[in-house]
Amino acid sequence: MTSQTLSDFARATSVTPTSESTFAADLDGSWKVAGAINGGYLLGVMGRALSETVPDLPDPLVISAYYLGPGDAGPAEVAVRTVRTGRSSATLGAELTQDGRPTMTALATYGSLGGLPGDVATSASPPDLPAPEDCMPMADGPREFLDAAPIVSQYDMRLDPATAGFAAGKPSGRGLLQGWIRLGDGADADPLALLAFLDAFPPVMFDLGRFGWSPTMELTAHVRALPAPGWIAVKVETRNIAGGMFEEDCELWDSTGRLVAQSRQLARQPRS
Amino acid sequence: MTSQTLSDFARATSVTPTSESTFAADLDGSWKVAGAINGGYLLGVMGRALSETVPDLPDPLVISAYYLGPGDAGPAEVAVRTVRTGRSSATLGAELTQDGRPTMTALATYGSLGGLPGDVATSASPPDLPAPEDCMPMADGPREFLDAAPIVSQYDMRLDPATAGFAAGKPSGRGLLQGWIRLGDGADADPLALLAFLDAFPPVMFDLGRFGWSPTMELTAHVRALPAPGWIAVKVETRNIAGGMFEEDCELWDSTGRLVAQSRQLARQPRS
Repeated sequence: MTSQTLSDFARATSVTPTSESTFAADLDGSWKVAGAINGGYLLGVMGRALSETVPDLPDPLVISAYYLGPGDAGPAEVAVRTVRTGRSSATLGAELTQDGRPTMTALATYGSLGGLPGDVATSASPPDLPAPEDCMPMADGPREFLDAAPIVSQYDMRLDPATAGFAAGKPSGRGLLQGWIRLGDGADADPLALLAFLDAFPPVMFDLGRFGWSPTMELTAHVRALPAPGWIAVKVETRNIAGGMFEEDCELWDSTGRLVAQSRQLARQPRS
Repeated sequence: MTSQTLSDFARATSVTPTSESTFAADLDGSWKVAGAINGGYLLGVMGRALSETVPDLPDPLVISAYYLGPGDAGPAEVAVRTVRTGRSSATLGAELTQDGRPTMTALATYGSLGGLPGDVATSASPPDLPAPEDCMPMADGPREFLDAAPIVSQYDMRLDPATAGFAAGKPSGRGLLQGWIRLGDGADADPLALLAFLDAFPPVMFDLGRFGWSPTMELTAHVRALPAPGWIAVKVETRNIAGGMFEEDCELWDSTGRLVAQSRQLARQPRS
């Protein structure tokens, strides 16, 4: 792939090896939300460093990220270690730091999604959604929302009107957001972009009328298949809100109706 | 707690410090299933070493374990490192090895479940289950099943007859198992026992007629509250079976109807 055809996402998450086990990254401030670099974007950066560490097993099968402090625009270092390598998968660890401050740490198992068996016996169903053109572009949101969340412009995100009540001050209270996502420049998603998509939608607490920042403590993502070109359907929900925390589950479905990625995160409830 | 009142589980998962950052454990062969030490029990051992590392923050809030090779009965070492410590939580890493062979590696955030805010706005509902005395004790299973799974005798596990069809050669095909669990000696569960409970039931693939071994690649557990005394209700399901792998979600509900723990694992489909 030449640099001309790199997606904005691939460029913004690119890493440069600085030793056998370290990479330099430059966190892009246009992927911020509420003053901090978005956790899904950070997962993309870390995911790329891991991918480049095991180029024959380039795809995340599962990655668990623990968020330690807010990321800021500017230089970052990703240190990678190999825990175990096998023929069809490798387990790795990684730390992302800025000026020596830990931002996130992760464990992951990588493999080759293209080389997996072809069986599909998934019993889950994709979300029932209006077509993207009948959903609400987040980029049409109020100016103050977009100013606080420049990341919105990096994606083309469309909210199902049935779960967009929060935008009109009428959250449903169900704890459910769904819609569509693709990269803002129209590039098709690869497995690393799926990692970012899993934490791109607004926090599901918005649908419960809780609009403050919901810092992610931990997010584990399963990437289950190479996504087909086109829009990705997104379903985000929470079912366990207690003790100052909540769990948030996200599913990503590709244009062929395949469940290509799932995540669950544990986050702190917003203060407001 | 005196040694007389230690539960069998506490005794079997006990660890002894051997340095500032290492613990010795003795893996108990009576927690085996299909020839390997059960992953939930291993999580209990690792969870205890982490708990003893940060005694003021003794409870797992979230732990992500990557399974690297089968555990065997006998000595093991748990090496722990502190990634970040705060006032109300600490993030740690750990490796469990036997004779230098890696068995599992994990990241975790610990805290104090007793010190969390008291809010509960959980929207999920506990599974609809007959009373424990109207469910099927797994310990009454066929001799060959019990011989292959000595762990069954370490717990009192009761299967909801509505999801026990597999035991009569009639799996439902839904990918759902539910029932009750408590420690075999009648001791009440603590947060470390919850970790073990999350991977104690038979693999959910049994309900799809797939009875081979389903090796766990990764399991992330959220422990959300101190469990009340008494039986714990268990719900295990899978919704995404594809590419030679499947995800398995487990929920644990205490006797007050509180969702006290959740896990999701990614596992390889059994060969048979």
